[in-house]
Amino acid sequence: MNASPATFDEMRRVLRDLPGPDLDAQTEIVQRQAVLTKPAGSLGRLEEIAEWLGCWQGRAHPRIERPRVAVFAGAHGVARRGVSAYPPEVTQQMVQNFLKGGAAINQLSAAIDADLRIYELDLEHPTEDFTQAPAMSEERAARAMAYGMMAVEPGIDVLCLGEMGIANTTSAAALCAALFGGTGVDWAGPGTGVSGSALSRKIAVIDEALARHKQAIDAHDPLMLLAALGGEEFAAIAGAVLAARRGRIPVLLDGYACTAAAAVLQAIDRRALDHCRVAHRSVEPGHARLLEVIGQRPLLELDMRLGEASAAALAVPILKAAAACHNGMATFAEAGVSGKA
Amino acid sequence: MNASPATFDEMRRVLRDLPGPDLDAQTEIVQRQAVLTKPAGSLGRLEEIAEWLGCWQGRAHPRIERPRVAVFAGAHGVARRGVSAYPPEVTQQMVQNFLKGGAAINQLSAAIDADLRIYELDLEHPTEDFTQAPAMSEERAARAMAYGMMAVEPGIDVLCLGEMGIANTTSAAALCAALFGGTGVDWAGPGTGVSGSALSRKIAVIDEALARHKQAIDAHDPLMLLAALGGEEFAAIAGAVLAARRGRIPVLLDGYACTAAAAVLQAIDRRALDHCRVAHRSVEPGHARLLEVIGQRPLLELDMRLGEASAAALAVPILKAAAACHNGMATFAEAGVSGKA
Repeated sequence: MNASPATFDEMRRVLRDLPGPDLDAQTEIVQRQAVLTKPAGSLGRLEEIAEWLGCWQGRAHPRIERPRVAVFAGAHGVARRGVSAYPPEVTQQMVQNFLKGGAAINQLSAAIDADLRIYELDLEHPTEDFTQAPAMSEERAARAMAYGMMAVEPGIDVLCLGEMGIANTTSAAALCAALFGGTGVDWAGPGTGVSGSALSRKIAVIDEALARHKQAIDAHDPLMLLAALGGEEFAAIAGAVLAARRGRIPVLLDGYACTAAAAVLQAIDRRALDHCRVAHRSVEPGHARLLEVIGQRPLLELDMRLGEASAAALAVPILKAAAACHNGMATFAEAGVSGKA
Repeated sequence: MNASPATFDEMRRVLRDLPGPDLDAQTEIVQRQAVLTKPAGSLGRLEEIAEWLGCWQGRAHPRIERPRVAVFAGAHGVARRGVSAYPPEVTQQMVQNFLKGGAAINQLSAAIDADLRIYELDLEHPTEDFTQAPAMSEERAARAMAYGMMAVEPGIDVLCLGEMGIANTTSAAALCAALFGGTGVDWAGPGTGVSGSALSRKIAVIDEALARHKQAIDAHDPLMLLAALGGEEFAAIAGAVLAARRGRIPVLLDGYACTAAAAVLQAIDRRALDHCRVAHRSVEPGHARLLEVIGQRPLLELDMRLGEASAAALAVPILKAAAACHNGMATFAEAGVSGKA
């Protein structure tokens, strides 16, 4: 961005000017795939992934050599309402765990040789309890978006996005209901592990928030809904997705909260997530519903529900494999292999 | 094995004496998973995989540092019946492609730092056309099993199995029908890409084989059915699965032909594949049916149908990630993270 204060208007300008796919790279990739030594289409989604990577990297030979994993942590006012199985202080404790290397995402990032960055939003000052007021001012949300944009730097060839924030599946559910319709019961789930009366309370809190923000919901302004119901980490993720698009960097989205944050952009422009793939279908039920709504088929389905960009990191080797097959395989002519009988 | 000639009786002795899981390692793993810094169960199948790896490696800290990929190539007499989209000589041409590094499995093995071995069965002498006679004598099949056992060596910590053999989805379909019931139409599919009248011919060939071997099928001896309807690469894969069990090496099975070969062992002893996971659900329809029958839920579903151990290699990073999380994560106590509220 630039030195002027971040505003939603500035974000809207970015959204109006999103670069499209590189169609020359795409054509070259499709032509090459057709002559590689394998039955046509037999590498399935690896072929589609090679094409997608090339389109958005702007390269006929896509590469995955410098993955970055960016985890955004935010503190939620609504956590005070007891919607999570864990107390609010776990957000900061887990950030310390990330910094000391003890969390799942540390191991998963190391396994793929990724550069792991932890981005702390203003953890000392949780957002407002969104059943009482908008979670954030427009200014705070726009600033968080601009902060998220910093996760994108030249040289990265894929960006894995994820989050940490106690209560943020409550925020994700409220945001999805506000963006795409439905109520708490449609979008809420166990999150870190609530059930029974605790889950009923979570659903009631979401419905309370939806009633509180009815006017904003009826106005159909996705960025205003992000400010009203999101956490700061949601705004940062949306910013990172935008910056990656401008930087020609494909994005892997992680679980429910991460996908909900990105979906704000798709609600503004249906092409806004074309450079993104959802890594994994979470067992959090709202995620499956959200994937239907935004038309994404995830790469993995391993019953995870952790967040932290864990599933996004786990999907990187699939991208690497797709690029390796595309770039390294011999053609039928090169290998002297007969074609179809 | 030993220097005596390989026989089915010898294989049956191995099958009667399969080692079980290491229950001490399992207990230790389950206890550790419960205190790692994540909501219980939130790593989903990664937790189950860590447990499975530890059980079969006999280690409370499983590791995936030395993967081996073993591809077995066999020549099928039934290929003469025009059941494949490709001519029979493609089997040997693809073996050359493997040896020169141009196939998908070369790129996928390199991406996971695996030791790739290509095992050629007797490609100069295809098996018999099994619509006319048993594909192999008992002796030839047992020899192929013993040959497959050579793919297992000390120090390997996971074995990825796969195959190459024009016409071998026809063999897989006939073998599955013989082992588990049904006819050609239940188990046949496009393979390398046949459809319409070519697919009808493939189905008819399978039904012809089932009629030819009715007596053997009614005798319910899975090893005899392997000889009657399998290819040599099927027997070799079954041998490799047995040797891996004895060597405490977890196995990743690839697609339809590979899983069918391994299923011969499960038809003899329902615990015979407990040290195996199927890497991927092929789009070949018989594979989904077979997975149901043998009770395996694959790790991946990426619309592949290539064989060559391609999907098995693609699943190795998931195992590596599961082991890394299990071994490297901090516990709640170590990290000073609060437990459930």
